[in-house]
Amino acid sequence: MSVIKLSDKFATFSEQWAPKLVGSVDDYDVKIVKIEGDFVWHEHADADELFFVIDGKLRMDFRDRSETVNAGEMIIVPRGVEHKPFAESECHMMLIERTGLANTGDGAASERTRAPEAI
Amino acid sequence: MSVIKLSDKFATFSEQWAPKLVGSVDDYDVKIVKIEGDFVWHEHADADELFFVIDGKLRMDFRDRSETVNAGEMIIVPRGVEHKPFAESECHMMLIERTGLANTGDGAASERTRAPEAI
Repeated sequence: MSVIKLSDKFATFSEQWAPKLVGSVDDYDVKIVKIEGDFVWHEHADADELFFVIDGKLRMDFRDRSETVNAGEMIIVPRGVEHKPFAESECHMMLIERTGLANTGDGAASERTRAPEAI
Repeated sequence: MSVIKLSDKFATFSEQWAPKLVGSVDDYDVKIVKIEGDFVWHEHADADELFFVIDGKLRMDFRDRSETVNAGEMIIVPRGVEHKPFAESECHMMLIERTGLANTGDGAASERTRAPEAI
């Protein structure tokens, strides 16, 4: 049970859209990720998903609107709501969600699907 | 599903050691709290607990050592481990833990026990 220094963790990788596992709370993952550009539309039918912006700016697109999330802010996407993260320039985020969720949602895996790697 | 701006949320209260509920992920609470000084020794036999420091400095005491957690860092206290948060000066934290956990742990409620209030 050591202190998790996010800046040190972010410094260990440069890959984008590849969540890294930095801890867990019961059966919930604490992950960090670097994103830039557009992702794919997806949803998690039975799981909420928390996005906490550490650095940069996230635009979370929904089918009917978008929300801008700045550093120090978060958005929780409720289960069953289609969403698509986007970042104009590189954005660093912390994610909290139930262990085992696919980053690309409930559909078939795609070239964007990544299992989190513990770092 | 709106953006949760932690600085705005922290500005709405001044009470210390009184967790406020700002969101939830499935049946996990996302809470914020202001602390200063010493808390009580406690544990949660069957639940992990995440402490993310937003501002200030947390010293998490364990029976055999202490860990210092600065802003932008976190510590996850595993289930069954006695701990006692301490802050020399006011520290702002985000907590993530299963809904329903008592802030003072598994024992009988005390004058430090607080149910989280949604803000």
